[in-house]
Amino acid sequence: MEPNPPIRVSVVGGSGYSGAELIRLLAPMPRFELAAVFSDRWAGRSLADAMRLGGPTGRLVVGPQSDAAPGSVGCEVALLATPAEVSADLAPKLLASGVRVIDLSGAFRLARADYPRWYHFEHPCPELLDEACFGLLEVAGAAGSAPPVREARLVANPGCYATAAIVAIAPLVRAKLIDESAVFVDGKSGVTGAGRKLEERFLFAEVDENVSPYRVADHQHAPEMERILSRVADAEVRVTFTPHLLPVRRGLLVTAYASLRSGVTEADVERAFRDAYAGAALVDVERPDAVTIASAALTPRVVVGATADVDRRTVVALAALDNLLKGAASQAVQNLCAMVGAPPPFLEEARS
Amino acid sequence: MEPNPPIRVSVVGGSGYSGAELIRLLAPMPRFELAAVFSDRWAGRSLADAMRLGGPTGRLVVGPQSDAAPGSVGCEVALLATPAEVSADLAPKLLASGVRVIDLSGAFRLARADYPRWYHFEHPCPELLDEACFGLLEVAGAAGSAPPVREARLVANPGCYATAAIVAIAPLVRAKLIDESAVFVDGKSGVTGAGRKLEERFLFAEVDENVSPYRVADHQHAPEMERILSRVADAEVRVTFTPHLLPVRRGLLVTAYASLRSGVTEADVERAFRDAYAGAALVDVERPDAVTIASAALTPRVVVGATADVDRRTVVALAALDNLLKGAASQAVQNLCAMVGAPPPFLEEARS
Amino acid sequence: MEPNPPIRVSVVGGSGYSGAELIRLLAPMPRFELAAVFSDRWAGRSLADAMRLGGPTGRLVVGPQSDAAPGSVGCEVALLATPAEVSADLAPKLLASGVRVIDLSGAFRLARADYPRWYHFEHPCPELLDEACFGLLEVAGAAGSAPPVREARLVANPGCYATAAIVAIAPLVRAKLIDESAVFVDGKSGVTGAGRKLEERFLFAEVDENVSPYRVADHQHAPEMERILSRVADAEVRVTFTPHLLPVRRGLLVTAYASLRSGVTEADVERAFRDAYAGAALVDVERPDAVTIASAALTPRVVVGATADVDRRTVVALAALDNLLKGAASQAVQNLCAMVGAPPPFLEEARS
Amino acid sequence: MEPNPPIRVSVVGGSGYSGAELIRLLAPMPRFELAAVFSDRWAGRSLADAMRLGGPTGRLVVGPQSDAAPGSVGCEVALLATPAEVSADLAPKLLASGVRVIDLSGAFRLARADYPRWYHFEHPCPELLDEACFGLLEVAGAAGSAPPVREARLVANPGCYATAAIVAIAPLVRAKLIDESAVFVDGKSGVTGAGRKLEERFLFAEVDENVSPYRVADHQHAPEMERILSRVADAEVRVTFTPHLLPVRRGLLVTAYASLRSGVTEADVERAFRDAYAGAALVDVERPDAVTIASAALTPRVVVGATADVDRRTVVALAALDNLLKGAASQAVQNLCAMVGAPPPFLEEARS
Repeated sequence: MEPNPPIRVSVVGGSGYSGAELIRLLAPMPRFELAAVFSDRWAGRSLADAMRLGGPTGRLVVGPQSDAAPGSVGCEVALLATPAEVSADLAPKLLASGVRVIDLSGAFRLARADYPRWYHFEHPCPELLDEACFGLLEVAGAAGSAPPVREARLVANPGCYATAAIVAIAPLVRAKLIDESAVFVDGKSGVTGAGRKLEERFLFAEVDENVSPYRVADHQHAPEMERILSRVADAEVRVTFTPHLLPVRRGLLVTAYASLRSGVTEADVERAFRDAYAGAALVDVERPDAVTIASAALTPRVVVGATADVDRRTVVALAALDNLLKGAASQAVQNLCAMVGAPPPFLEEARS
Repeated sequence: MEPNPPIRVSVVGGSGYSGAELIRLLAPMPRFELAAVFSDRWAGRSLADAMRLGGPTGRLVVGPQSDAAPGSVGCEVALLATPAEVSADLAPKLLASGVRVIDLSGAFRLARADYPRWYHFEHPCPELLDEACFGLLEVAGAAGSAPPVREARLVANPGCYATAAIVAIAPLVRAKLIDESAVFVDGKSGVTGAGRKLEERFLFAEVDENVSPYRVADHQHAPEMERILSRVADAEVRVTFTPHLLPVRRGLLVTAYASLRSGVTEADVERAFRDAYAGAALVDVERPDAVTIASAALTPRVVVGATADVDRRTVVALAALDNLLKGAASQAVQNLCAMVGAPPPFLEEARS
Repeated sequence: MEPNPPIRVSVVGGSGYSGAELIRLLAPMPRFELAAVFSDRWAGRSLADAMRLGGPTGRLVVGPQSDAAPGSVGCEVALLATPAEVSADLAPKLLASGVRVIDLSGAFRLARADYPRWYHFEHPCPELLDEACFGLLEVAGAAGSAPPVREARLVANPGCYATAAIVAIAPLVRAKLIDESAVFVDGKSGVTGAGRKLEERFLFAEVDENVSPYRVADHQHAPEMERILSRVADAEVRVTFTPHLLPVRRGLLVTAYASLRSGVTEADVERAFRDAYAGAALVDVERPDAVTIASAALTPRVVVGATADVDRRTVVALAALDNLLKGAASQAVQNLCAMVGAPPPFLEEARS
Repeated sequence: MEPNPPIRVSVVGGSGYSGAELIRLLAPMPRFELAAVFSDRWAGRSLADAMRLGGPTGRLVVGPQSDAAPGSVGCEVALLATPAEVSADLAPKLLASGVRVIDLSGAFRLARADYPRWYHFEHPCPELLDEACFGLLEVAGAAGSAPPVREARLVANPGCYATAAIVAIAPLVRAKLIDESAVFVDGKSGVTGAGRKLEERFLFAEVDENVSPYRVADHQHAPEMERILSRVADAEVRVTFTPHLLPVRRGLLVTAYASLRSGVTEADVERAFRDAYAGAALVDVERPDAVTIASAALTPRVVVGATADVDRRTVVALAALDNLLKGAASQAVQNLCAMVGAPPPFLEEARS
């Protein structure tokens, strides 16, 4: 029996933190052939030079971003690690050429009306927003009425904070355990969550020995959380979200708070999490104080846990993940495998 | 006119992080004479040797903790930087000798019934709990029916998380702006908040590049927050509190979340904070995203800020402080000055 | 053609930082079967439980260290990630059972007379010291008169500092470019170099915002550097070595200084490094200021560079590596592959 | 008896890390009146606003840098925390107005011929270079033939690395204990040593978990070390210096290596350090492994120590200091006090 030939994929925006991580994950996977990489920063350089990548992938020469659409023709899937406006421009061109798309930006995660407020542009192809599948495979109902990932032409890879918050809160809203009209999410993220930006607030002297809130109750992942959780709950979920920048390179933790509905017990909360993630190989349900950044950093997993305070009728749910992996690149690879019917990756993953 | 002779004070528990900070603050203050320091760890050593302190204070020789009560006789005030059980034992002895007491532990902050649950001992002198004044000078009503700090024989210096949370939430509950039955406090603290403990979870390899929740919805500062905020609100306030350990040496940030009452506006929230702290020299009211650990670390100040999300009818209030200063030693010095009628310290303080 | 059955190996001391890293490297390698793991800390637990390892390796149950010698019978090679005294006791037993040994401790790196001074014990099997091959494959002559790695029964895996220093200095002494009687090595290491020790000096509050020298001119890797470099130079090399502890988890940098011999040029220095490592897939020769901890951490590579100051007739040579990988576990896997004639691993390795 | 009126001083470049530290040190000193501060970044703002400084100093309004020379007239001393080229332009103007100058840049530390090579400009007032006193009060002979600090019109405040290296090496060269033709200095500095620069290499994601050498054997503090140490030794001292950037905010450590002259003993080395610094209140001579960044950070002290390796005939000498204090601002305040005959500051300083 002939083995299947590898599936050709391209990566656009390869020099950003998420793009480079995507390349690093795909390079050793025999099921895929990294056929093309695009990045203006690295244009003209080989991956061996730009990333010290060995083997045949190292010999690949990076093309300029302007070649991304024509240069991906013949690929089964293009993975876009580009800013939202660039993705919104590229995705229809790629789809028109028959290339399926996984977009790691926010360009296909919200409703048309949200774009001016949260991403500062009018969406150029709103007709694709309904078609785009929200690619969070472990959360039942996250895709709503869009085609499921395996059939999707266009997958919106979730935001890093949104992934963690949705994984932490979905079991509670699906089982109707909390008052979904007032959910509070406290986010804490390492600096790579912001990408490779040269701003004073990202200098070591500013970040070290510091913790800073930013975009308080005003972050673009809040409407993403609300949109997906409302689908899962089949009710309107309102989320107040405050992210904080940590003196940490990689990894992200969310601590979510809500009021329990009357009569809900600690056992109800535990059962909701066990049931929700019983079959999810990459979601670990743990005691709340085991949900730490270190438990998830450098792994493709989400670690999640919750505890009810029955006396106060409240619940605290936590989730931790690596912002560049489950919050970006490894989640994209999960979606890629699901789209092409390849077995899910990371079966042998360990963590320290 | 003769200058007043300096006021004699003693410090018990001088070798811990908070105790050493107390000594460092008191040494250069001409209004006080550090007459005695007690610590088993440093017993027999001079402060010049143990802390490299110069001048006459450096020549002071540290006594063993067992000498603390007799050795403080003749002092106006003893400052206890000792574990709660030690403080509960020492305070009545000191008071009986006519020495006033500022206790930095939790021994006099709660009600009698709380001690077995939160501090794991039966309180040995519950009659002192009503008399003890909760020493948070900037929050009107924090002392309840106890004598005010200037008249108090016994001052309970607030906990570090409790100070920050109370400063952040008091203006909201006093002005009746929020639903006080469900307040959520997310705490983030540097490692010195835990004192000088040799436990695996405090090793550099465990703390660095990590953030860990601990005592999720189960920390002894939660009842302290509830007790004081209920006094301020004149209504029962319920707080769900989750602290997190950060890869930071000093400083602490709390992010508090609550639901707004109907009709409350952004301007109401702003006014509540401006009014509450108009006369507080050591409380800075700032924009929420300026409330960072770096803005408060190494200073005796609390930095506080809040924003309303009128659309979701919620509010986010933040407060930052240095856990060893406003969260412990400099707050004790504020209380000390108030007790003896000395002018408040730190008027020339700068921050970077 | 039948594929070769996998080669059975055991790991002793699996719960230490280096041992766990060894298991993580070996688990996904089809050429090897991890047949047994020993560790008192993890005894009785599966690797799935102790390390969250998936697949068949995860089902392996860890045995107590006392079972290591009998329990490794039938393995081709045992890898010892144990303290030097334990290794010195175990190695002869394993060899007597026909199991080849790679020892990651210092038990087989020095001469008999060095053990009381540097490791505080009399060596129990000095006859093995001559037979033990110093397993630094990239440095010609490092093994001296011992059998080469591929034929060795017993391989002494080099120390982390020693690996870096020898890679940095060997090209200079082999080409007779420096005065080998006075070489100075300044070492800088992350905390995992010290293993998982619960000592006050490894607490976050002590390590963070600090750099501390230790064992100044008195570290047990200095005689290891001298012994191997003297072999390479065929002359007595004297090394003065001072290590420093850094606020970093992983990775190590050495900066070596020496006086150039008369007439040596910058080009001579460059050529010595290019020639020495032309065929070494895991040694990167770079500009000196590109030799950083980040360039090597989390990779199996050594990054090395040097510059001559011809005016002062001195040379500065730097080398960086990951103390748990090239400084321990990945170097052991290189040696393992060489011993059994397997192709060298890590051909597809990337670094960020 | 009338108290002396305070001495008026100005600070130019107040918004940089060193300048702000100068202001923070001077504000509470009754002997000085901070009469004017200049900084383009803060021009028009009060110090209360820019630095949260209280009291009368807080009411001072910062002027633009172009006003520095005329605006300092009437001050006894101007302190320049400006780039070297700016200092070289300002100093003669200030001196011509009768204002004495302490310059924190490198503009007056080297010989005329060194400026194009090390500071990339032709020195505009070389006649001042001989007159400038190198202000390192604790090192006998550092000023050479220039007038001593108390009489100097112009004081060159030493560089941070140079201060540490000179304090570490001066006792050895003055006592003729080492071969001064080949001294090696390994420097390790926190990021504030570089000032407030927005460059990619200073981003948290680049600095954290990393250590990077820079300007290997090519740093402008090397000729400064050589010039001053040659004066102290009365012989030509050659220094090979490699600095490294650390994941630390403040503080700096140098580890210096040299060959001992024949017959030199451990006791000779100890005696040289004890003798050199017996009267220096701000130099602590310690065991080498107590010379850590934490021992000196946030204090005005240098901590120094050395050990001889008599067997190898080498010596290791270490010195640690706070780069913004003893490496810049507090050293400038020491020089200021010496210039005006005020008692030396910092007598009551403690350290943690």
